[in-house]
Amino acid sequence: TVDGTALWADILETARIGGTPKGGIRRLTLTEEDRQVRAWFAAACTSLGCTVTHDSMGNQFARRPGRDAGLPPITMGSHLDTQPTGGKFDGIVGVLGGLAVLRALHASGHETRHPIELINWTNEEGSRFAPAMLASGVFAGVFTEQEALDKTDRDGIRFGDALAAIGYRGAPPCGQHPVAAYFELHIEQGPILEAEEKTIGIVTGVQGMRWYEVTLTGRDSHAGTTPMPMRADALLAAARIIEAVSTVALAHGPDAVGTVGLLENRPNSRNVVPGEVFFTIDLRHPDDAVVMAMETDLRGRIEQIVTDAGIALAMERVWDSPAVHFDPACIASVRTATESFGYPARDIVSGAGHDAAYMARVAPTTMIFVPCAGGLSHNEAESAEPGDVAAGANVLLRAVLDADAR
Amino acid sequence: TVDGTALWADILETARIGGTPKGGIRRLTLTEEDRQVRAWFAAACTSLGCTVTHDSMGNQFARRPGRDAGLPPITMGSHLDTQPTGGKFDGIVGVLGGLAVLRALHASGHETRHPIELINWTNEEGSRFAPAMLASGVFAGVFTEQEALDKTDRDGIRFGDALAAIGYRGAPPCGQHPVAAYFELHIEQGPILEAEEKTIGIVTGVQGMRWYEVTLTGRDSHAGTTPMPMRADALLAAARIIEAVSTVALAHGPDAVGTVGLLENRPNSRNVVPGEVFFTIDLRHPDDAVVMAMETDLRGRIEQIVTDAGIALAMERVWDSPAVHFDPACIASVRTATESFGYPARDIVSGAGHDAAYMARVAPTTMIFVPCAGGLSHNEAESAEPGDVAAGANVLLRAVLDADAR
Ligand SMILES: NC(=O)NCCC(=O)O
Ligand SMILES: NC(=O)NCCC(=O)O
Repeated sequence: TVDGTALWADILETARIGGTPKGGIRRLTLTEEDRQVRAWFAAACTSLGCTVTHDSMGNQFARRPGRDAGLPPITMGSHLDTQPTGGKFDGIVGVLGGLAVLRALHASGHETRHPIELINWTNEEGSRFAPAMLASGVFAGVFTEQEALDKTDRDGIRFGDALAAIGYRGAPPCGQHPVAAYFELHIEQGPILEAEEKTIGIVTGVQGMRWYEVTLTGRDSHAGTTPMPMRADALLAAARIIEAVSTVALAHGPDAVGTVGLLENRPNSRNVVPGEVFFTIDLRHPDDAVVMAMETDLRGRIEQIVTDAGIALAMERVWDSPAVHFDPACIASVRTATESFGYPARDIVSGAGHDAAYMARVAPTTMIFVPCAGGLSHNEAESAEPGDVAAGANVLLRAVLDADAR
Repeated sequence: TVDGTALWADILETARIGGTPKGGIRRLTLTEEDRQVRAWFAAACTSLGCTVTHDSMGNQFARRPGRDAGLPPITMGSHLDTQPTGGKFDGIVGVLGGLAVLRALHASGHETRHPIELINWTNEEGSRFAPAMLASGVFAGVFTEQEALDKTDRDGIRFGDALAAIGYRGAPPCGQHPVAAYFELHIEQGPILEAEEKTIGIVTGVQGMRWYEVTLTGRDSHAGTTPMPMRADALLAAARIIEAVSTVALAHGPDAVGTVGLLENRPNSRNVVPGEVFFTIDLRHPDDAVVMAMETDLRGRIEQIVTDAGIALAMERVWDSPAVHFDPACIASVRTATESFGYPARDIVSGAGHDAAYMARVAPTTMIFVPCAGGLSHNEAESAEPGDVAAGANVLLRAVLDADAR
């Protein structure tokens, strides 16, 4: 088993890097805070005898040698970047839980057949640079490295430049090494495990998700002198579309969700009727056919809204991550490991995207979930129990050893 | 009459200070661009023999001596600050039109009884620092100087600090000098004069206007894992309120307007259900009782929306500028001047706020409007005809001389 006390101490120690007054973390990818936590990670892994490298996308790999140097590694991983108002567990539990596994192997001197590798993926959150899971996506061949490097944040800063600026553009090309298996420990970020009093979620897959960018163009005009019927108010049209996103999600069953998370209003002046609004839409459902139906339904409503309002529409689907089904053998390893501890568990589908969703394209992959309070995530108040986190890391350890023995 | 060619040249020359690719101006108050145009203004007035000073709010006064040094000045003025995506005429026509009047007096050597003073008011737009007409408001005793100095922009910069930073915090206390009369030339910023083919609007007053600040607090949560019924989506509630503002304006007759011009969404990340939204509301009507009724109607709708959505509401009325009725004698001077030129004209009420609205509290005041294309303002495409602008400045000249002779 892992050292749960050391794992919890690691969580609290790294939470200071970008820590917020409300107890959360603001550690956007490729910022100074990200650089600091990467340095901490490399030092911690090195002290356990691992070799730490990073690739051309900044992904960090901490490798513990196995008996058979010719075998591809069994990997664990997640991410250390956070949302602007993120919590202390999302992604972090997977990386530091993997570190706890390495520490347990190091302490016991256990020799594995495969090398064991712990990965800290760059830009999982997709908050600063869209889409999410960008660097695991390059690793898995979903995106080219060039398109990833050319992504820009909302201030126009290139991903490639930000990566170089923090000193993490490595020489080894991203994605050029084979992987025997990939296991990712994560908090559920949803309410199910807690409600059902389960310690472990055996994750069978990830739901489908699509992201869109919308620009509405109306006409800037004076708030005091422009009669209501003469306006082309881009924000009013955006408001109607925000309502439509909610309506469409509610209309497609209890598993459908739809969100407008980011919105920029222009010129954003109290006495100017807004002439331009940029915003994003996130649609998700476990069934790809339903995601498609939601898109069609929403597009129809948006066309009607902009036509009625006399607003020009530019809408682009910028990300499509179809539903993922994880590897049966890896799932079996997690189930066996969970049962060996006697942890209460259930099978679960992830509502959030994870690097595992892309790793599943190039390696046998699955995930382990642990509960978080109230299912709350992407919130500074995100919270998880030390015992649950340790249980998740224990399952991760035994699942890795099970896969190593296969 | 004024030199219309020189006036138009001044408009084009100053339009380069903060000029935008789309032909507008971005010259927010108390920025480097504002500093540059202030220096231009001071130099231009000095070259016409005026004494140029600025007071503790940064208001600039260019004074041409009169025959009787003991008399208070007859004043003209407007503003040189603009919206973030402003035009070349809003405010500018009033200041440069006043400069054209000074130039005509200088060229002819005409001696007035009163000193003649041209004023460039600080922060008329209210875009960077709310509310609008802040410095004329201090001059007129509507706001204390201290409360004005303590206003902050959306980046938290204090008005007083920004004023000092551009070197325009003058020694003379704002508002300590009496004024015999105040005339302000301005573009209409609305569609009426153009539609009725009138050159001059004889402005009889300004409509009532109120500004509000609203903060909605819900709960940040994960866009992929938070079921629709479990959300406290502050942006969705804001969307419903934006619709309600439009509904309320449409319900209170053709003269009512309501606008949400500024909105800030937090944390503003694609995959986070927004937990906090800040936005502003602008309500206007020529009849103060209707403004009050609009507010009551809107507050009722907002309460309902936030209650239904489980969102916490903080709403504050941050500005109340009641309807203004201008001075009959000043209006008569403008009417006489207009008739003396034979310009087609009509009486009109201003939909926009102006420094004249506050000056009317401490001095006999009125305004002169000229048409602008399509009534479009607070837009980079704002446009006016040279002939109309010159006609407005001619009326300003004769109205000032008429008042001087009273
Ligand atoms: N795990 C997680 O929050 N990932 C971010 C990607 C997403 O699901 O939006
Ligand atoms: N004239 C003008 O646009 N003033 C700004 C104040 C307002 O009416 O909102």
